[in-house]
Amino acid sequence: MRTKPSAKAIGTNSLQAEPRPNIVLIVSDDHGREALGCYGSLGAESPTVRTPHIDQLAADGTRFSNAFCTTASCSPSRSVLLTGLHNHANGMYGLEHQEHHFSSFDTVRSLPVLLEQAGYRTARIGKLHVAPERVYHFQQVLKAGGVNDPVSIGRSPVEMARLCYPFLDKNSAQSANPSVAQPFFLYFATDDPHRSNAVAADGSPIFDGSKPNLFGNRPGGYPQVGDHFYQPRQVRVPPYLPDTKACRAELAQYYESISRLDAGVGRLIDYLKDTGQYDNTLIVYLSDNGAPFPGAKTTLYEPGMRLPCIIKLPKPQKPGFVQDAMISWVDVTPTLLDFAGVGTSSLGKQGRSFRKIIEQENVSGWDEVYASHSLHEITMYYPMRVVRERRYKLIVNLAHQLPYPMALDLYNSFTWQDALRTKRKLFGKRTVAAYLHRPAVELYDLQTDPDEVKNLAANPRYQNVLVRLQAKLKHFQQQTRDPWLYKETRE
Amino acid sequence: MRTKPSAKAIGTNSLQAEPRPNIVLIVSDDHGREALGCYGSLGAESPTVRTPHIDQLAADGTRFSNAFCTTASCSPSRSVLLTGLHNHANGMYGLEHQEHHFSSFDTVRSLPVLLEQAGYRTARIGKLHVAPERVYHFQQVLKAGGVNDPVSIGRSPVEMARLCYPFLDKNSAQSANPSVAQPFFLYFATDDPHRSNAVAADGSPIFDGSKPNLFGNRPGGYPQVGDHFYQPRQVRVPPYLPDTKACRAELAQYYESISRLDAGVGRLIDYLKDTGQYDNTLIVYLSDNGAPFPGAKTTLYEPGMRLPCIIKLPKPQKPGFVQDAMISWVDVTPTLLDFAGVGTSSLGKQGRSFRKIIEQENVSGWDEVYASHSLHEITMYYPMRVVRERRYKLIVNLAHQLPYPMALDLYNSFTWQDALRTKRKLFGKRTVAAYLHRPAVELYDLQTDPDEVKNLAANPRYQNVLVRLQAKLKHFQQQTRDPWLYKETRE
Repeated sequence: MRTKPSAKAIGTNSLQAEPRPNIVLIVSDDHGREALGCYGSLGAESPTVRTPHIDQLAADGTRFSNAFCTTASCSPSRSVLLTGLHNHANGMYGLEHQEHHFSSFDTVRSLPVLLEQAGYRTARIGKLHVAPERVYHFQQVLKAGGVNDPVSIGRSPVEMARLCYPFLDKNSAQSANPSVAQPFFLYFATDDPHRSNAVAADGSPIFDGSKPNLFGNRPGGYPQVGDHFYQPRQVRVPPYLPDTKACRAELAQYYESISRLDAGVGRLIDYLKDTGQYDNTLIVYLSDNGAPFPGAKTTLYEPGMRLPCIIKLPKPQKPGFVQDAMISWVDVTPTLLDFAGVGTSSLGKQGRSFRKIIEQENVSGWDEVYASHSLHEITMYYPMRVVRERRYKLIVNLAHQLPYPMALDLYNSFTWQDALRTKRKLFGKRTVAAYLHRPAVELYDLQTDPDEVKNLAANPRYQNVLVRLQAKLKHFQQQTRDPWLYKETRE
Repeated sequence: MRTKPSAKAIGTNSLQAEPRPNIVLIVSDDHGREALGCYGSLGAESPTVRTPHIDQLAADGTRFSNAFCTTASCSPSRSVLLTGLHNHANGMYGLEHQEHHFSSFDTVRSLPVLLEQAGYRTARIGKLHVAPERVYHFQQVLKAGGVNDPVSIGRSPVEMARLCYPFLDKNSAQSANPSVAQPFFLYFATDDPHRSNAVAADGSPIFDGSKPNLFGNRPGGYPQVGDHFYQPRQVRVPPYLPDTKACRAELAQYYESISRLDAGVGRLIDYLKDTGQYDNTLIVYLSDNGAPFPGAKTTLYEPGMRLPCIIKLPKPQKPGFVQDAMISWVDVTPTLLDFAGVGTSSLGKQGRSFRKIIEQENVSGWDEVYASHSLHEITMYYPMRVVRERRYKLIVNLAHQLPYPMALDLYNSFTWQDALRTKRKLFGKRTVAAYLHRPAVELYDLQTDPDEVKNLAANPRYQNVLVRLQAKLKHFQQQTRDPWLYKETRE
C-alpha cells in the first residue's frame, strides 16, 4: 500500500502528488564488484562467489554497470553517500573512528535528516562510521540487546535483518489508520565483507599478516546462515591481485563473507515481502568502496572505485535492466531525495538525481564521474583528484612525493605480507614499486589498458586529452570549493 | 583575600589545605619572544618594541627564558595548553576553524572543565579556536554586545579587559559572604598580534601580499589605547627574517599590534588590582606560537617554538627572577591544576607541573622539551617530531618528501611575496630552497649554530648525539601513543 504525504512534510515539490516509496539503502563494507555473481560478465569462472539473493535483486531491478564511489575509504565514502557532497566539501576527510577522528561540518544536512523532515520514519542498523551524530541523525538505531534480543549481531547480516522486522512491519510499528502511515527510510549497513580484526586491550585493532584473515567468518558459522565455504583453488583472482596461495586463501575467506552478506540481503528482502512492503519500497544495494586488498580499497584505480550498484524500483518496469549511465555516490542522496519528493536545493549541487534514467535506454549526458580522496587514516595523507570518462581517466596525486600510504588492514594482510616476504616485483599487473611511488599525474586509456598500468600523461599523442581532462578537473575543484585547489598557487 | 576550598571541590589533594589562587591565563596570538621588551637580552636595539606592562609583569614575577610551545600552530597549540596532552594525543591535529575542522576527542578533560569541577568560576574572553565546546567548556563567555556594552571588542585588548571587570569584581559577581567565595579562572586570549585579514563574501580570509599587513591596526587606533607607532627603520629584524623594506614595513605594524596587546595586559592587571585580586591571583602570560612570518609560525625552528612565558605568583618572593628551566606548553595544565590543588591523574602524564620550581635557582631535571606538529591547515600535512635539549635539537620531518607547506597568511605576506618577487635566495640565514625542501632528519648544535642552518645529521662526529636523540624521540612517541609511530614500520 502506498503512503500519502505526511502533514509534516516540508521542502517537497510537485512529486508530492505521487505516493512516496519506502527507501532501503543497503551499504556493504568493502565489496568489490568483481566478487558478485550478477557482475560475472567481468570474467568470472564457475564456480565463483555465490550471491543468489543480490543477483535476484538485480534480476528484479536495474543493475548499474558504471557506478563509482568518489573516495575509496569507508567514512568519507559514506559521508558522500549520505550528504550528496564530496568529502572535501562535507568535512569528513578521513576515517571517523579512534584517533582518526574526522567528522562533517555541523552545517551539513544529511539524507536521514532531510527525509525525517519530509515526514519519513528513519532507522539505521549496523555500521555508521560517520560523525557527528547530530548531522547523521536517525530516529532509531536498531540493535540487538533488548529483552527479546539476547543475540549479538556479530557479523551476521541475517541477524541484522531480523532486528529490522518490527521497523518494517507497519502494522506493529505504525498506527492502524493508513491515512497517517509514514513511509520509512532504512539504512542497512553491514560489516561484511570487511576484514575482521582482533582487538588489543586498548581497543586498537590487530591484524595478523602471517595467515589468512577470516573476514568475519567463524567456525560453525552463524545461526540461519547457510554454509558457503570456498576452496582457494575455486576463487577467481582479479587482475589487480597476484595469483598466489596467500591471496587465494584470503579470497576464499572473502567470498564466504560475501555469501553471508548475500544471505542477509535475502532475508531483508523476504521480510519486506512478508510485511507487504516490497512493492512500495525502493531498494538500493551498493558498497562503500572496493575490496579490502592492496590495489583496490583506498585507491582510485578501477577496483577501488568502480562498484556494484543495484536499484530495485517499487514497481520495476524492466526487470533485469542493465544501465550503463555513469553515476557516482555523490548522486545517491539527490536521487533518494528526488524519490521522496524533497527538493535538493539545500545540497551543494555536487551530485544530481538519476531517478528518471534508472530504466531508460541509451541515456545521454551521464558520461563522466569525478572522485576526490583526501586521507584514510589520519597518518595517510594522500589527496587525489580524478575525472573518469568512458574511455580516459585522469588521476592527479597532489602529494605524489610521498610513498603511497598503506592502510593498517591492507599492509598487514596475508596477501601483502606474503608479497613482501617473497620480494615480489609484480602485484597484479602493476609493479610493487609503481604502486608505492606514483607520479604527479596518471592518464589511462581504459579501452586499451583496463588495468591502468600504462601511464600516458607524458605521451605527446595524448596531450590534448590531458589538457582537456585537467581543465575539467580544475573546474570540478572550483565548483565544489575544494580546499586543495590552492596547491596550484602556493606550491 | 584568599578563598577557601569550595564544598564542590573534587579531585583535590593535600594542597587543598592552602588557599587556592585565582588564575588568569593570558594567551596572545603569534607573539614571538624576539618582539618583547623584557626578552631584550636577545639583542634588541633602542628604540625597539615598547611593552612596558608585560615587562612590569616580568619585573614583578618570573620570566622563563626557556619556554616552548609543542606545536607552532594556533589551534593545536591551544589544545596542548588547555589539556596537558600533545596534539597528536588530544585529536586537535590542525586548525579548528572553517574547512580545517579539527577537534579534540570527546574523552579529553580540559583545564577549564577540571577547574570548574574543583569549584572554580571559569570564564573566557577572545579567541577560543579549539573544539568541541563541550570539551573546552567555560561557564561564561565574556563578550561585547550586552545592553551596556555596545562596543565591539574589535582588536582592542583594552576593551577586552574592560569586559572582564564584572567577572573579576568579586563583590558584584559573587555572594557577599566570603565563606562561599570561589576562586576564578580567566582565560584571556587576544587576537593581537595576529595578522589581520579581510574577509570575502563567503567568509574566507583574504590576505593581500602587495602591501604590509596591518596586524589589526587601524587609522585612529582604538579607544583608550595609547599611540604606539613605529617607523620601519626603527625595528629590529631578527636573524630568521630578511632585512628588506617589505619585512621592516610589516615588522613596524607587528610592533604596533604588540604594543596594543601590551596595553590590554596592563589594563587587565589594573583591574585585578582595582578589584583587590592581584595579590591572590596567579597570572600567566604566554603566546600560542612564534611570530606570523615565514621561519617562525608553523615551523619548529626556534623562532616558532621558543616563546615568551611570564608567571606572576600570587605573592612573588623573587620579583624579576629569570628561570632557565626548560618547560613546554604541555606542562601548563598540570601546573595550573597543581596550583588549584587538583590531581592530574586524569591527564596522560605527558606534561608535569613546574609549580615548585618557578622561583627556584639552579633547577635540575628540566633540561629537555619535546614538540609534535601534525598539520596547520587541512591541506598542510607536515608531521614533525622534535626533541630539544639545551645544546642539541633533533627535528624529524615525517613527510619530508613534500615541499614545506606555506600557511595562507604567511604565503600571502608582503614579506614573503616580496622575497619571491625579487627572487631572493636567502631568507634570513636560511636559503629559500632549504626552507621549502627539508631533509628527513635535522640535527643542530644550538650552541654553535643558534640559527639552525648547519644540519649535522649526516656528520659522523655527531652520530652518537643523533642516535641518542632518536632513541629519546622514539620513546616519547611510544609514551604519548603517537599515531605517527607506525611510519617506521609501514613505510
